[in-house]
Amino acid sequence: MNPEPHLHQQLNQEQEAWVDLMFLGGLGEIGLNSMVFETSDHLVVVDAGIMFPEDYMLGIDMVIPDFSYLRERRDKIAALILTHGHEDHIGAVPFLLKELNLPVYGTPLTLALLREKLKEHHLLEQSELHLIDPRRQLVVGPFVFNFIPVTHSIVDGVGFALTTPVGTFIHSGDFKIDATPTAGEVTDLNSFADYGNKGVLALLSDSTNAERPGYTLSERDIGCTLENLIREAPGRVIVAVFSSHIPRLQQIIAIAAKQGRKVLFHGRSMVTNVGLARQLGFLQMPPEQEMTTAQLKSLPDHEIIIVTTGSQGEAMSALARIALDAHKQIRIRSGDLVILSSKFIPGNEKAISTVINNLYRLGAEVVYHEVADIHVSGHASQEELKLLLQLTKPRYLIPIHGELRHLVKHARLGRSLGMIDAQLLLATNGDRFRFDVQGAQRLTRIEVGRIFVDGKGVGDVGNIVLRDRQHLAADGLFLALVAVDATSKRLISGPDLISKGFVFEAEQSDMLDAAREIILEIISRALAEPTQDWLEIQIQIGKALRKYFFKLLERRPMILPLILTL
Amino acid sequence: MNPEPHLHQQLNQEQEAWVDLMFLGGLGEIGLNSMVFETSDHLVVVDAGIMFPEDYMLGIDMVIPDFSYLRERRDKIAALILTHGHEDHIGAVPFLLKELNLPVYGTPLTLALLREKLKEHHLLEQSELHLIDPRRQLVVGPFVFNFIPVTHSIVDGVGFALTTPVGTFIHSGDFKIDATPTAGEVTDLNSFADYGNKGVLALLSDSTNAERPGYTLSERDIGCTLENLIREAPGRVIVAVFSSHIPRLQQIIAIAAKQGRKVLFHGRSMVTNVGLARQLGFLQMPPEQEMTTAQLKSLPDHEIIIVTTGSQGEAMSALARIALDAHKQIRIRSGDLVILSSKFIPGNEKAISTVINNLYRLGAEVVYHEVADIHVSGHASQEELKLLLQLTKPRYLIPIHGELRHLVKHARLGRSLGMIDAQLLLATNGDRFRFDVQGAQRLTRIEVGRIFVDGKGVGDVGNIVLRDRQHLAADGLFLALVAVDATSKRLISGPDLISKGFVFEAEQSDMLDAAREIILEIISRALAEPTQDWLEIQIQIGKALRKYFFKLLERRPMILPLILTL
Repeated sequence: MNPEPHLHQQLNQEQEAWVDLMFLGGLGEIGLNSMVFETSDHLVVVDAGIMFPEDYMLGIDMVIPDFSYLRERRDKIAALILTHGHEDHIGAVPFLLKELNLPVYGTPLTLALLREKLKEHHLLEQSELHLIDPRRQLVVGPFVFNFIPVTHSIVDGVGFALTTPVGTFIHSGDFKIDATPTAGEVTDLNSFADYGNKGVLALLSDSTNAERPGYTLSERDIGCTLENLIREAPGRVIVAVFSSHIPRLQQIIAIAAKQGRKVLFHGRSMVTNVGLARQLGFLQMPPEQEMTTAQLKSLPDHEIIIVTTGSQGEAMSALARIALDAHKQIRIRSGDLVILSSKFIPGNEKAISTVINNLYRLGAEVVYHEVADIHVSGHASQEELKLLLQLTKPRYLIPIHGELRHLVKHARLGRSLGMIDAQLLLATNGDRFRFDVQGAQRLTRIEVGRIFVDGKGVGDVGNIVLRDRQHLAADGLFLALVAVDATSKRLISGPDLISKGFVFEAEQSDMLDAAREIILEIISRALAEPTQDWLEIQIQIGKALRKYFFKLLERRPMILPLILTL
Repeated sequence: MNPEPHLHQQLNQEQEAWVDLMFLGGLGEIGLNSMVFETSDHLVVVDAGIMFPEDYMLGIDMVIPDFSYLRERRDKIAALILTHGHEDHIGAVPFLLKELNLPVYGTPLTLALLREKLKEHHLLEQSELHLIDPRRQLVVGPFVFNFIPVTHSIVDGVGFALTTPVGTFIHSGDFKIDATPTAGEVTDLNSFADYGNKGVLALLSDSTNAERPGYTLSERDIGCTLENLIREAPGRVIVAVFSSHIPRLQQIIAIAAKQGRKVLFHGRSMVTNVGLARQLGFLQMPPEQEMTTAQLKSLPDHEIIIVTTGSQGEAMSALARIALDAHKQIRIRSGDLVILSSKFIPGNEKAISTVINNLYRLGAEVVYHEVADIHVSGHASQEELKLLLQLTKPRYLIPIHGELRHLVKHARLGRSLGMIDAQLLLATNGDRFRFDVQGAQRLTRIEVGRIFVDGKGVGDVGNIVLRDRQHLAADGLFLALVAVDATSKRLISGPDLISKGFVFEAEQSDMLDAAREIILEIISRALAEPTQDWLEIQIQIGKALRKYFFKLLERRPMILPLILTL
């Protein structure tokens, strides 16, 4: 359904200023964050993130938002604003820039991380990247952005105040309130408060932890646990952590320094991100604390900390290979302490468990968040969300970034502060609001969707292909090939049978003979007829085999009956 | 490797009594529990459980232990002892009984649940089932079993003391220590203590929660939370819980009674298990509290509690269908409260999240363990495990039931009580210990494994088939068919191309044309030669297409080049 006609009517009805706000992704799901602010002749996009594939998305590498809405309005698009450098906010930017050449605005680290992506996609040269300076406002058509530093599990993240003809929108970014972060800036509560005093039309706020009561702990609160663990470690320490978690990395470096351990950053993304963070001055590390892979042999074990990727059990990660004892330079030996300094992201538990068990098998001691407080979230919990509401005093609250359950819980926090239902705009992907002098109204939804990226293919794997993969994955494939002479009405060759992922053929000769019989019987019956509808006959064979296999094995392989008529 | 020769040597060396203990499953993994006690002429099996398939086991319904070791000793097998009725302890019994007709011993509920399984497998008539009576000892050859009631998340569970010529083994069963369970018996600590005083050779103890400090809460501790939630619910209450969790069901019935709500048990396994538990007197419910599906329409909402399955987001469960608004009798309306009274089992989080979000979408309020204390574990935490060690004072501790990380942590608890490494027997599947007057020694491992059950096929899906399914799942299939006249050296037909789960063909005509070219070129080159090795030519085509597709799409579909020579 195309919402355009409806929209135009309204344009004619109301001549005064308006701003439309709509969501391309990230509301009703984790990841895929992207939203749009639009006026009659300007459009601004905020974030363009990816989502990691769900289990049923077989073979899919990543998911990006459907940008059709932007494609159809390419001439209006004035800017892409990036709030921080996490994959779920910048991961889809290269795919967007491939189609639409629009100016991108971000903080130094965010753009540095984006540049690495654009290089991989050979898009760096043609891209127009602009640095955000929190001390200077950014004017894009009718939109005036003032960026507000926020604390998160990556540094250099921002929220923003967006002043428009109809009022001021506040976007929290991904944030937590931590007065003592180990790196990066403290969430600028005063700025949020200033806007609160001046009057805020709508607050768009991070709902990731809306289910968590209380306050999210400070990054520093885990320092003591980490430090004790590392101090008591008799040998080498291997810490697995997200390579973009600069505050955590800074904390580990500090602990290492105290305890006279040198630090080896290991794994491609780890080395890249650490390099960028150090160049930009976000990560402080004296050169004498660095060590090389070569020094793994020369240095005594108790002077070594290896910081690597793989805290989510990623199959290709350094840690996964170390756990399988398949890593060239790093072989686990008893005395090694491995710390997984991150949470178990839902869907990854089994992979992480396998890594942990493999490490124990090799004789390492392993510590993870289930058994020690070695991780804190980067997202605000309920009390912090309430605090932001209290400071900004918005007319409307729009919970963003989260599954529906998180958005609902976040809206309830607004109610607990005395907001009424009309002020709580519960939205999911595709929802669109119009803001004007009267306030907010819901417009017809826009079409949104998810695009699958598989290898170099973007969007060419759709539901049909996925259904086939699911079918093949569940019961495999059975292929039957016969060749018939259409003129002499004779079977020339076959049935040749091929099965893949269905049964272990060597043990199923009886079944294969029976299948051959079923096919021959249908073919010969058909050849006896005056005319043959070969397509129909293929369907008959498919049906017969399907029935036979299910009766015998209760399996439904994909059946491909091929009749070659010559 | 076949351990037999080695074993025989040792038999000749030592003539005095010995008992071998070995593990077919459940040590180094969750589920698949099965172990063996063996003397020179008797063998007893304890439990025969299933494991639910891992993500990589595509299309597999369940996993059972490899019973080869038992098959080879069928004449020695004197009994199968079942500790309780959970799938990971009795699920594989039908598969075992199909091959080996051995007497099975279990408590009333355990056997009742087993009977349901045996019926489905048409094995009930020929099976020899014996009731365990905790007050009477069971003598099987040299083995004397005394069963000890234990509290767990199912009722009628037991551990046991096994007296043998070489000493007494204690098996904890799946247990927790709960002085106030809502159904079933209290763990009989006094019996454990008695054996401790008499002297215990080895304690085999449940390691599932060995990572959890402190004590597991009593089942009663969640009653208050559940009661408040249900009292404040304005409309219907739907509770999703494991159908075998009789103590939880009893608790819900009690709360319903207090608040004047009738209870509808819904879902096949729920109805069956509740029926069995009531027959056997484990579940008390006055008839007037029952309601029928028909009464869903007639009764006022605030008088209804629906107890159903699907707390793990199982796709076919009643709750999943309710959440999709695809359930005939039960349509969610605002005011409904849904309680998921169970933990999120690793691997199921995403499915559960989807159900929760769908329920919110339909207007229900949803409560789950992340947001309220509505579930307690059925397994002992560290302090309880230490308590059992303290009471039984075993010479050896053998942690059972758990991933390696759990077994390791459990062994450490033993060390914390002053046991030395020689007393802590850390074992995984396949490990075998010999116990004699000197004590325990490790023998060569036995061969163990996992058998995949797919539909009616047991063990016919092996790693080759799984690898093919993984390959097909990731990138699908590409099939190229040509027919050539071997005598006239002419191409008669093709190339015909078929792809499944690879690309959306309609959008890939250029690629398909190119593939056709690649094939034709190889074929024509081959036909120009004096002789043709068609197998080799198929391999060439496969290679060429593989290279082309990867360059173009970075995908590796399974490629089936078929050359029909006529």
